[in-house]
Amino acid sequence: MTVVEMTCNANSLEVARVCENIESRGGQARVVPWPEGPCVVAVDLHADKAPLAALPGVVALHETKCSFPLASRDVFASRPAMELADGLILGQGVPLVMAGPCSVESRRQLLETARGVKASGASVLRGGAFKPRSNPYAFQGLGSEGIALLLEARKATGLPIITEVMAPEDVEWLAPHVDILQVGTRNMQNFSLLKALGRVDRPVLLKRGMASTVDEWLQAAEYILAGGNSRVVLCERGIRSFDKSTRNTLDLSVIPLVKSLSHLPVVVDPSHATGRRELILPMSLAALAAGADGLIIEVHCAPEEALCDGPQSLDIPAFAALMGRVRHLAGALAAGEEEARCGLGIAI
Amino acid sequence: MTVVEMTCNANSLEVARVCENIESRGGQARVVPWPEGPCVVAVDLHADKAPLAALPGVVALHETKCSFPLASRDVFASRPAMELADGLILGQGVPLVMAGPCSVESRRQLLETARGVKASGASVLRGGAFKPRSNPYAFQGLGSEGIALLLEARKATGLPIITEVMAPEDVEWLAPHVDILQVGTRNMQNFSLLKALGRVDRPVLLKRGMASTVDEWLQAAEYILAGGNSRVVLCERGIRSFDKSTRNTLDLSVIPLVKSLSHLPVVVDPSHATGRRELILPMSLAALAAGADGLIIEVHCAPEEALCDGPQSLDIPAFAALMGRVRHLAGALAAGEEEARCGLGIAI
Amino acid sequence: MTVVEMTCNANSLEVARVCENIESRGGQARVVPWPEGPCVVAVDLHADKAPLAALPGVVALHETKCSFPLASRDVFASRPAMELADGLILGQGVPLVMAGPCSVESRRQLLETARGVKASGASVLRGGAFKPRSNPYAFQGLGSEGIALLLEARKATGLPIITEVMAPEDVEWLAPHVDILQVGTRNMQNFSLLKALGRVDRPVLLKRGMASTVDEWLQAAEYILAGGNSRVVLCERGIRSFDKSTRNTLDLSVIPLVKSLSHLPVVVDPSHATGRRELILPMSLAALAAGADGLIIEVHCAPEEALCDGPQSLDIPAFAALMGRVRHLAGALAAGEEEARCGLGIAI
Amino acid sequence: MTVVEMTCNANSLEVARVCENIESRGGQARVVPWPEGPCVVAVDLHADKAPLAALPGVVALHETKCSFPLASRDVFASRPAMELADGLILGQGVPLVMAGPCSVESRRQLLETARGVKASGASVLRGGAFKPRSNPYAFQGLGSEGIALLLEARKATGLPIITEVMAPEDVEWLAPHVDILQVGTRNMQNFSLLKALGRVDRPVLLKRGMASTVDEWLQAAEYILAGGNSRVVLCERGIRSFDKSTRNTLDLSVIPLVKSLSHLPVVVDPSHATGRRELILPMSLAALAAGADGLIIEVHCAPEEALCDGPQSLDIPAFAALMGRVRHLAGALAAGEEEARCGLGIAI
Repeated sequence: MTVVEMTCNANSLEVARVCENIESRGGQARVVPWPEGPCVVAVDLHADKAPLAALPGVVALHETKCSFPLASRDVFASRPAMELADGLILGQGVPLVMAGPCSVESRRQLLETARGVKASGASVLRGGAFKPRSNPYAFQGLGSEGIALLLEARKATGLPIITEVMAPEDVEWLAPHVDILQVGTRNMQNFSLLKALGRVDRPVLLKRGMASTVDEWLQAAEYILAGGNSRVVLCERGIRSFDKSTRNTLDLSVIPLVKSLSHLPVVVDPSHATGRRELILPMSLAALAAGADGLIIEVHCAPEEALCDGPQSLDIPAFAALMGRVRHLAGALAAGEEEARCGLGIAI
Repeated sequence: MTVVEMTCNANSLEVARVCENIESRGGQARVVPWPEGPCVVAVDLHADKAPLAALPGVVALHETKCSFPLASRDVFASRPAMELADGLILGQGVPLVMAGPCSVESRRQLLETARGVKASGASVLRGGAFKPRSNPYAFQGLGSEGIALLLEARKATGLPIITEVMAPEDVEWLAPHVDILQVGTRNMQNFSLLKALGRVDRPVLLKRGMASTVDEWLQAAEYILAGGNSRVVLCERGIRSFDKSTRNTLDLSVIPLVKSLSHLPVVVDPSHATGRRELILPMSLAALAAGADGLIIEVHCAPEEALCDGPQSLDIPAFAALMGRVRHLAGALAAGEEEARCGLGIAI
Repeated sequence: MTVVEMTCNANSLEVARVCENIESRGGQARVVPWPEGPCVVAVDLHADKAPLAALPGVVALHETKCSFPLASRDVFASRPAMELADGLILGQGVPLVMAGPCSVESRRQLLETARGVKASGASVLRGGAFKPRSNPYAFQGLGSEGIALLLEARKATGLPIITEVMAPEDVEWLAPHVDILQVGTRNMQNFSLLKALGRVDRPVLLKRGMASTVDEWLQAAEYILAGGNSRVVLCERGIRSFDKSTRNTLDLSVIPLVKSLSHLPVVVDPSHATGRRELILPMSLAALAAGADGLIIEVHCAPEEALCDGPQSLDIPAFAALMGRVRHLAGALAAGEEEARCGLGIAI
Repeated sequence: MTVVEMTCNANSLEVARVCENIESRGGQARVVPWPEGPCVVAVDLHADKAPLAALPGVVALHETKCSFPLASRDVFASRPAMELADGLILGQGVPLVMAGPCSVESRRQLLETARGVKASGASVLRGGAFKPRSNPYAFQGLGSEGIALLLEARKATGLPIITEVMAPEDVEWLAPHVDILQVGTRNMQNFSLLKALGRVDRPVLLKRGMASTVDEWLQAAEYILAGGNSRVVLCERGIRSFDKSTRNTLDLSVIPLVKSLSHLPVVVDPSHATGRRELILPMSLAALAAGADGLIIEVHCAPEEALCDGPQSLDIPAFAALMGRVRHLAGALAAGEEEARCGLGIAI
C-alpha cells in the first residue's frame, strides 16, 4: 500500500486529483480526512508512484507492506502529541491515569468516587453507563441516565470523562457529550462500531480483544484511523489463556512490541486483567516499567457494595496509595532513561 | 431464576398479571413474547412461587440456577422441531447441509455455485454479502447488491438462503428478505446485535466466539431467546488455541456437551475450523458422528479464483462427493443408534 | 536432510561406509538401526549426494526439508503394517481398542476389568502402575507390584498389555515384560525418556503434550524412531485451551492432518480428553469418523470406587455398548469409503 | 494435611515417634528431612491432632487445605533467606541477576561471556551443557565437556554457576559440581527428575511449564521440597497462548500472586519469554516492578554466531546497559516502598 500524505491545508480539489491519479492507473483510493491534514491510502496501485509525488498538496509518499499503514511507524515514524481533552496531552511528563467505577450506579457513588480519584491525582474519570454483560438478565448499566451523572461529575470535578459505547447507533449522539469513547474487548472487531467511531471527532480507547493478536488489534485501530479519526489509544487488558488463577493473562510484552510497530499510545487496564484487587498495584508499576503511557483503573468508593467487579475495585485510600507509587516510579523511570542516555548507565 | 410458561393463547392481560405478581413481591419480570406462547422470566424473586402458579394462563413454573434458563434443558427438556424455512425442519431425518461461497462475488459465481450445491443435495444456500474483515482495506462484500443476488439464486434454485448480519441497524430491513440470519464469531457478544435479532421473526445461526466458553455461548443465545425469538441454531466453528497447524481448533466435544445442557440444535462449520480443504470431509463426518444436527460448508464453483477463503473452499465435485459420504454415514449412525436401543449393541 | 535407506540385510561394514562417505564430505551421519533394515540420516550434507547412492547396500536416498524425516511421508510414503504384539496388527480391519483402568489398584479390580473388556472385544489391556500425579502426596500407583498384576491379567485373558513408563531408568527392565510402553502427555518432551525408548524393541504409544504443536509431536516421535525403534503409535488426548467445560479440548482435526504428514498410526484417548463419562461414546465415534486407527479408553469395574479418574471411567456394560457402536460404525465407514472409491458416492 | 514442624536438632527417634503416632491413627506420614530441621507431613489424618503437638521435638502443627503445604504461606508465613551459593543470599538488597549463554559452545565463548557478565554485575553464570531440543538432529549441548568449561569459568570469574539437568540419572553426579540446578519448562512435571532433585543438597531453579497453572507449578515445587530439599527458586519464563507475536506470553501477574501464596522466591526469564532482544530490557524492568527477586538473562559475546537462541541473546554492552537500568530501578522501587510504608505515599 501507499500512503499519500498531504499538507494540512490541502483542498478538496487537490485530494480529488490524487484519487483520480490513483484510480486511473488501476489502484483504489481511500481518502482519510484527518483534521491535521488529509491522507489518501492507495490500495493495489502497482504502477509507477512518481506522478503522484508531483501533484499539488502532496507532502510525501510512504510505501509499506504493513497491514495497518496509518497506525504504523513505517509510515509515520512519530505523530504529534495527542490531546485527549482540553489541555490534557498524552505522553507529557507523568503517566495518564484514568480511574473510576466499573459502572455508574448512583449519583452519590459516582460523585464520591470522582472526588476521591481527582484528589488522588487521576486525570480522567471512567464510568460505564452502557455495560456489556454476558448475561441478558444482569444489570446492563444506567444508560443515558448514567451519562447524565457522568456529565454532572465532570462539572463537579473538572475531570474529563471516558465511557464505553457498544452500538454504532449510539456513537453520533454520545460523542459530543463525552471526552473519550471506549471500545470494550468484546467489540474490538465490531467493524460497524469501529467505522462509526472513525467518523467522529473524539479520541477512542480501543481495548484489545481477549483473543486478538497484536496484528488484529492494530488493524482494528486502522479501521478508526482510516475513517478519519486519528486519535486512537490502545489498551491492553489481558488475554484469555489456559490459566484461570488470574481473570485474564496480562500481556505486558505487547507494550514495547506495539510501540516499536506503531506510533499509537498504549495504556494498561490492570483491573480487568487480574481481577484481583491485591495485584493491581504491582501490575500497575510493571505496566509503567514496560513503557505504558497510562493506566485505567477501577475505583469504587465502597467496593463491597459494587454492582459489578467489586473484587477488582480499589477503594479510594488504596487508589491514593497507588498514585503515590505511580508518581514515584514514573519519576525514577524517567531519570533512569535519562541516565542511560547520557551513558552513565553503562559505566560500572 | 423462575421461568413462567404460559399457554400459547395467553392474552396480554394475563401476561401483565404475572409480571405484576412478580414485581409486587420484589422480583423483576421480563416478558418473552415467543410466538409459540409467551414466557415470563422472573429474576431475583425469592418469595413463595405458589401464587404465580395459580394465575390464569400459566402452564408451568420452572426453577433453575442455570445462567441461560430459556436455552436450558432444565426448563424445557425438549422443544418442538424448529422450522428454518418453509417446510425445512431441522432434526428430521437427514442432517441439514448449508453450502455456498464465503462471499457473494458475482451473479455468475453465485448462480453456478447455488445450482451445484442444490444438485448435490444441500438444503440451504450460504453466501456473505456483508463481510467482517480484519483489514479495513480488504474486500468488504457486495452489500445490498449481494443480497439481491442471493434472492435471485433462491428464486433460481428454490434453496432458502442464510447470510451474515453485522450491524444492529441492518437487522430489521434484512430479516424479511432472507431465511436465516447468521452471527459471526467476532459478534457473538455484540449484545446490541443480539438484542436486535431477538426482535425479528427469523431463525438465527449463532457462531461460537473464537474464545468463548460454552457457558458464554449459551448466554449469548439467551439474549436472542429472551428478546422473543425462539429459533436459535448454534454453530461450532473452531476456537483459538496455541496450535496453528489448523486455522482454528475444532472443538467437537461441545456437541454432545451442549446437547446435554440445551435443547438448541447445533451445526458445525468445518471450513473455518480447519482452513484446509483436505480436512473438511473427515471433520464433517466426525461432526455428524459426534451428534451434530447439520453442517455449513464453503463451496465455490472455482475456488482458485475466490476473493476470500479459497484454500478452504470445496469445488462442486468435491462437495458432491462429501454429500455422498454424509448421507451414507447419517444412515449408518441412525441404524447404529437404533440397534443399540434394541439392545443388540450390547450382545457380543 | 537426507535419509539413506539400506537393504534389510545390510551389514555393519556397509553402514559404516555410508557414514564415512557422509562425514568425509562435511555432513554428520546418524545410524538408525531399525530391525526391518537400517537407515542413515545425513545432517548438514550439502555436497553432491550421487556418490552415496552408488554404495553397496543402499536402496534409496530421500531428500527432505521436514523436521521429522523418518516419521514423514516425504521419506516413507507408507510403512509395513505395524505389529503391536503377537498377531495383533494395527490397521487391519476393525479399529484397535485398548481399554482398562486408569491405575492398577488391586488384583480383583484388574482381573474383573480385564475380563470385562476382553469379553466386549478390546484388543489390549491398559493399566497404570507408575502414575504421574500433579501432587506428591497423591497415590502414585502400585509400581512393580502393579506390573506383576498386569502380567497376571495378561495370562488370564490373553490380552497384550500397555502401561506407562515415566523414567528413563525404568525402560530397560520394563520393556521385556510389557507389550506396549506408553509415554504420558507430561513426558512428550522428556528427551532422556524418548532416547531410552528408542533403544528397546517394543512399540511406544506417544501421547501428545497438552500444549504441543503437531510439529513438536512428530519431532518427539522422531527421537524414538531415530534411536532405532520404528514402532511409534501417536495418541491425541486433548490439548489445553481457555475453555474448561471439558477437561481438555479434543483436537480431532489433527488426525487427518497427521496422517497426511506421517505414516505413523494415530489413536485417540477420549477419556482424558473429555474427562466426562457421557461424552466418551460420541467422541469415540467422532474419532473413528475422523480417521483414527484406534481408541484407548478408561474402563473400571466399579468407577465410583476408582482411586483416580472415576468420573471419566466407563463401567463394563457401558464399554460393551460402546464397542457395539464402534464395530457398527467401523463397518459403515469402510463401506462408505469403498462406495466413494467406486464412484457411487458422487452420483446423485 | 497437617505439617508437623520439628526442632532443627530433632533426632531420628523423635521423628519416628511422630510418624508412628500419625500412622497408628489412620494417617500416612511422610518425613521431610530438611537440613534446617525436619518436618513430617501427615496425609489423611482425620483424628485429633492434639497428641501430636505434645510429642518431644515438635515445634508446631500447621493445618492446611493447600495442595502444596511446604511451599505455602499457610504453613510457613516466611522462611529464612535462601543462600544460593557461598555468601550469595537471595532477597538481600539488589535483585539477583543470572546471565550467560543459552548453551556452552566453546571455551573462548564461555570465558569471554562470563567475564563480560561479571564485569557488568551479574551474580551467577548461566550456561547449558545438556540442551533439551525439540529436534533429535539439533545440537544437544556439549554435555560433560560443557560442565568442565563451566567449572573453569567459575574458577576464572568467581561466579557461581547454574546449569540445566534433564535426566534423573544425571542429578547425583552433577549436583556436587554446580551451584544451582535448573529444571526446564518441558520437565516441570517430570516427576522422576523432581524426586531426584529432592534428594540433593543444591538449590533448584524450577521453570514454569509452558502450559502449567500456578497450582501445578507450586505442586511441582512441593515434590522437591517434600523430598528434603528446601531450596527451590521459581522461574516464570512465559506461557503458551494463541498469540505468536512474542515467543511466549510473559505472565508477570503470577509474581505477586505466587508471592501471596508461597514463601518461595521468584525470578523471571525475559529472554525465553519474549524471544526478541529488544523486548528484554523493558520486560526486565517490568518484572522487577512486579516484585521479582531476580532475573535470568541470555547473554552471548557474539549473538550473531550463537548455535541457539541468538535472536534473543544480548551482547555484553547491551547487558551492561540493562544492568545499569536494573540497579537504578531496584533502588527506586525500594525507596518507593519505603516512602509508602512511612505514609508519605498517600499524601498529595
